[in-house]
Amino acid sequence: MKKVAIIMGSDSDLPVAEKAAAKLEEFGVPYEVHIFSAHRTPDEAGSFARNARAAGFGVLIAAAGMAAHLAGALAANTTLPVVGIPLKSKNLDGVDALLSTVQMPSGIPVATVAIDGAVNAALLSVQILALADETLADKLTAARAAATEKVLAKNAAVEARFNK
Amino acid sequence: MKKVAIIMGSDSDLPVAEKAAAKLEEFGVPYEVHIFSAHRTPDEAGSFARNARAAGFGVLIAAAGMAAHLAGALAANTTLPVVGIPLKSKNLDGVDALLSTVQMPSGIPVATVAIDGAVNAALLSVQILALADETLADKLTAARAAATEKVLAKNAAVEARFNK
Amino acid sequence: MKKVAIIMGSDSDLPVAEKAAAKLEEFGVPYEVHIFSAHRTPDEAGSFARNARAAGFGVLIAAAGMAAHLAGALAANTTLPVVGIPLKSKNLDGVDALLSTVQMPSGIPVATVAIDGAVNAALLSVQILALADETLADKLTAARAAATEKVLAKNAAVEARFNK
Amino acid sequence: MKKVAIIMGSDSDLPVAEKAAAKLEEFGVPYEVHIFSAHRTPDEAGSFARNARAAGFGVLIAAAGMAAHLAGALAANTTLPVVGIPLKSKNLDGVDALLSTVQMPSGIPVATVAIDGAVNAALLSVQILALADETLADKLTAARAAATEKVLAKNAAVEARFNK
Amino acid sequence: MKKVAIIMGSDSDLPVAEKAAAKLEEFGVPYEVHIFSAHRTPDEAGSFARNARAAGFGVLIAAAGMAAHLAGALAANTTLPVVGIPLKSKNLDGVDALLSTVQMPSGIPVATVAIDGAVNAALLSVQILALADETLADKLTAARAAATEKVLAKNAAVEARFNK
Amino acid sequence: MKKVAIIMGSDSDLPVAEKAAAKLEEFGVPYEVHIFSAHRTPDEAGSFARNARAAGFGVLIAAAGMAAHLAGALAANTTLPVVGIPLKSKNLDGVDALLSTVQMPSGIPVATVAIDGAVNAALLSVQILALADETLADKLTAARAAATEKVLAKNAAVEARFNK
Amino acid sequence: MKKVAIIMGSDSDLPVAEKAAAKLEEFGVPYEVHIFSAHRTPDEAGSFARNARAAGFGVLIAAAGMAAHLAGALAANTTLPVVGIPLKSKNLDGVDALLSTVQMPSGIPVATVAIDGAVNAALLSVQILALADETLADKLTAARAAATEKVLAKNAAVEARFNK
Amino acid sequence: MKKVAIIMGSDSDLPVAEKAAAKLEEFGVPYEVHIFSAHRTPDEAGSFARNARAAGFGVLIAAAGMAAHLAGALAANTTLPVVGIPLKSKNLDGVDALLSTVQMPSGIPVATVAIDGAVNAALLSVQILALADETLADKLTAARAAATEKVLAKNAAVEARFNK
Repeated sequence: MKKVAIIMGSDSDLPVAEKAAAKLEEFGVPYEVHIFSAHRTPDEAGSFARNARAAGFGVLIAAAGMAAHLAGALAANTTLPVVGIPLKSKNLDGVDALLSTVQMPSGIPVATVAIDGAVNAALLSVQILALADETLADKLTAARAAATEKVLAKNAAVEARFNK
Repeated sequence: MKKVAIIMGSDSDLPVAEKAAAKLEEFGVPYEVHIFSAHRTPDEAGSFARNARAAGFGVLIAAAGMAAHLAGALAANTTLPVVGIPLKSKNLDGVDALLSTVQMPSGIPVATVAIDGAVNAALLSVQILALADETLADKLTAARAAATEKVLAKNAAVEARFNK
Repeated sequence: MKKVAIIMGSDSDLPVAEKAAAKLEEFGVPYEVHIFSAHRTPDEAGSFARNARAAGFGVLIAAAGMAAHLAGALAANTTLPVVGIPLKSKNLDGVDALLSTVQMPSGIPVATVAIDGAVNAALLSVQILALADETLADKLTAARAAATEKVLAKNAAVEARFNK
Repeated sequence: MKKVAIIMGSDSDLPVAEKAAAKLEEFGVPYEVHIFSAHRTPDEAGSFARNARAAGFGVLIAAAGMAAHLAGALAANTTLPVVGIPLKSKNLDGVDALLSTVQMPSGIPVATVAIDGAVNAALLSVQILALADETLADKLTAARAAATEKVLAKNAAVEARFNK
Repeated sequence: MKKVAIIMGSDSDLPVAEKAAAKLEEFGVPYEVHIFSAHRTPDEAGSFARNARAAGFGVLIAAAGMAAHLAGALAANTTLPVVGIPLKSKNLDGVDALLSTVQMPSGIPVATVAIDGAVNAALLSVQILALADETLADKLTAARAAATEKVLAKNAAVEARFNK
Repeated sequence: MKKVAIIMGSDSDLPVAEKAAAKLEEFGVPYEVHIFSAHRTPDEAGSFARNARAAGFGVLIAAAGMAAHLAGALAANTTLPVVGIPLKSKNLDGVDALLSTVQMPSGIPVATVAIDGAVNAALLSVQILALADETLADKLTAARAAATEKVLAKNAAVEARFNK
Repeated sequence: MKKVAIIMGSDSDLPVAEKAAAKLEEFGVPYEVHIFSAHRTPDEAGSFARNARAAGFGVLIAAAGMAAHLAGALAANTTLPVVGIPLKSKNLDGVDALLSTVQMPSGIPVATVAIDGAVNAALLSVQILALADETLADKLTAARAAATEKVLAKNAAVEARFNK
Repeated sequence: MKKVAIIMGSDSDLPVAEKAAAKLEEFGVPYEVHIFSAHRTPDEAGSFARNARAAGFGVLIAAAGMAAHLAGALAANTTLPVVGIPLKSKNLDGVDALLSTVQMPSGIPVATVAIDGAVNAALLSVQILALADETLADKLTAARAAATEKVLAKNAAVEARFNK
């Protein structure tokens, strides 16, 4: 199976990367974690992206805050799908990262998820890889069904408590 | 090859769908165009999404404005990757559609592109399908190279004009 | 009397539901509480809404955060009045939920109240039901008068303290 | 049947009022149109609201722009449901009117619809009145079905054109 | 000397009113404090404003949050200058109150100060009253000079510490 | 009677100044018009403000766009009331000017009116001057009554047309 | 004298580049114009920036819209001062470009000017170069004085017209 | 070497000034720290700026919050490069200061860095001074390389931990 790369702009973003990693592990999807900065290590970020397809990656996940250029910088150097996670920083509630990630110019898409949306970034990567892997697709179906069951169980508990 | 579904919430969004369709055609990716509204035809939207994988679709593109629920409503009914295009409406400059599309809760991702970003939605779909199709991957590489050449040519023209 | 349904997207929204429930109880309005997610249990949400009128409901209150589709998803499946409470989440201060709830397209209204406005959602429901129930209308008048008295009493205390 | 009052803050808002009126007429709901300004005729606005229930009104629709206090000023003087339409003005794209209308304090709800959402304000009023009027409820069901058919017909046309 | 009225929409706004009151006391300007709500005691708010000029008031200060209609509701009932203090509430950082206060329609001005700007509301009132009171004007000049001195002293301390 | 100074940051703001001037003339309030820029003629702006009280001015109106410092720069150099009109520029819909004008630090108030609110800036100035001039106060009352009559007349016309 | 590079992300930004170029020419500052895209020609953008100091450049001006990464991408590859001009695009009024340009992480500054602020980007570059060039500094002083004179002349005209 | 002036609007901004000072010290760039307020000590702010070039300064850094006029007020009085740091205050998350600092009118540039971006303000100043000082330029190159090494080391640690 192709691998997923989880790339963060700074080691302070590690908790986000770990959430994405945990979700990928849940699905048995192989992944790597890296720290590349669009601004402090632009060469390494660029060359990682350029080699990613040949190195067996199928999706790149990029998590960055503020003027979040990481996802775009990777996308500029690969035609693999790049998933962007805009991170909330100390100011502006993540709006800066959201707009810097999602408002990409025509030609270089970034698949943007919610602010701090690490779990969905991982799930989206699994969905992408599952197109060529029926076992993975079945796991997604099962996970979705389990999530539905969990909500239904909570609903049952609430109904039992409130509705006589 | 798996197909891409371009789904819009209203026929006033046709120009957006056509841009996405044209880009898919450029890459020889099979596609269908549909109008399903999360609010006016929720059943049809839901059942299309539930059957999409079996019907041979690989990616669903959803374009909607205002409280843009279409991408989310499709994503709730499939584990295929769903790409959301937030559309600018008469008011609010597309911010409502952007937030309604990208801020999905954990468990149900939508791969969001820029406001009115039809071309990038199509390209992202091609990138996703190209993971299992090397010819398509080569076309993406070629298209990226051509886009680079085009910028370089424009740069050469500008340099010739301004820099003696 | 017709019932009010308080529907939340997740059990983490329970405190909001409880505030609305307490206010309905104050007015002796029958209600039920449910957890249905527009994204994780779309079928249950849809079928609840489709059956709500027949099941004796008069108003549906929907509370959800982020890309808050719950109110819209219910409204798409009923012609009962749907009241939407946009919830503040960890990021964006509730703006995402507000726009996702209020900016509904023509044809499918959602009666939106303030961010985290559980009490007003309940009061609005009472106001709606009171159109066909004079006793309830009288209770509303009395409650409004009591609220006015409370402000006047506070004013009297403040005036006594500050204005010699 | 109870009447609906469409109240606008200025005669420049007449096109909005006319849209709401046309929709009410479509459903055979009796209505009146008035111009009352929260700021220029506060007494008339207040006394209209205070007398509205006795005068046979069931819902008040208020349309105003900028620091849109009209809906709130009416709601402060009645316990009838008040529907607020925030209007887009020359600046700020209607955000000022939206927040001035929807962010009402606890105790005085305003049922807010989308910016410039005249049709939905009328439909919401019909939904409210239909709780006590089965013929009206049936008309809503029929209108919803017709709207669904219209989207399906457009979808059929688009499918015929694009999907071979 | 004419009096200043400090009016708040709720007793939870008392800390703001106290700051304004303290500043007025510093200048020896007579003032009263009241709680009137645009929504819960609209009659009292209106009649206070209508009688304010005759009662010897020169300026009305109104402090309110969320859909902050208080300043506008007072201004609608008097031609005295009304100063509005938009208050930050639990959500939206005071933006709702700022826009609800400042975006008044032509004909009914509200002199708006910064979010939570109680001190400046009081100072502005003093400036207004000082037009007809030279002693007060002199106090303003003296206070300004003292504030300048305070900054200069702090600057001297910082310069001594940092600049050798 | 004290004079009002209408100060704009650039001669492109002349239409705004003319609206304010026309309203002052309507009330017979003496005024002057000046162009001073906080950034291009800071000395002239400052010295005008410093001399304004002695020169017979009672209120300074400042109209500026973008990073609108003009009102604040005048307020820093006088203890006269300064009224700020934030102007809409080519971008950002006037939000930049609004925040630059209204968010003044403690100690230096600016009485801010709505974006492009020239008429209200003039009216506020008249209200301020009328505190010491009963004839002017009477004119304000008359003008307010006339405005009310105008709305009532429009209401009568609308009622005659719509309500049979 | 060191040169200034004006770099735009796309040839549709040429009008902006021309404004900056015209201002540089006015000061006799040598400049070059280039089109490099952070996303479509990342290598060329990077290598231009890496070689810029050696090639005799003193300042790089970058103009880009949407998720405007160009200035940041250049700054990541040089320690020369980089001036960023956020451009207004079709949607969002330039807010996306502003935040993408100014919210740079610690370590990689971009000197950001106003949205579409081409003239100020050029002036800032001249100010920077003038630190090592007294003739240039004198030209800046003269230009500033001329701008002041222009405002004073306009003021004189306005004063003559309005103030008798 | 020319000096850098770090100017803050209030002594509550000292932590920001200290961060900038520490970074300048790291590069051996001489600096001074001052408190000048655009509003409370406009004369001192203005005359400092007017004399700054003659006093040996090369760059002025201005840090201020809310309606942050300080950078603009300095820029209005000098043709030296002025770097503006918008500060986050209690409300509005720094958006007010950002727009007040960056949206300067044509003719008077302010080089704006991120909200609370003290380190980048210092670095930008060093970059500017380094144009005329090769040793300083070399220090910048070395510091950039060190920062890159630091990220690479962190990346190596993360890779060792996650990627087997």
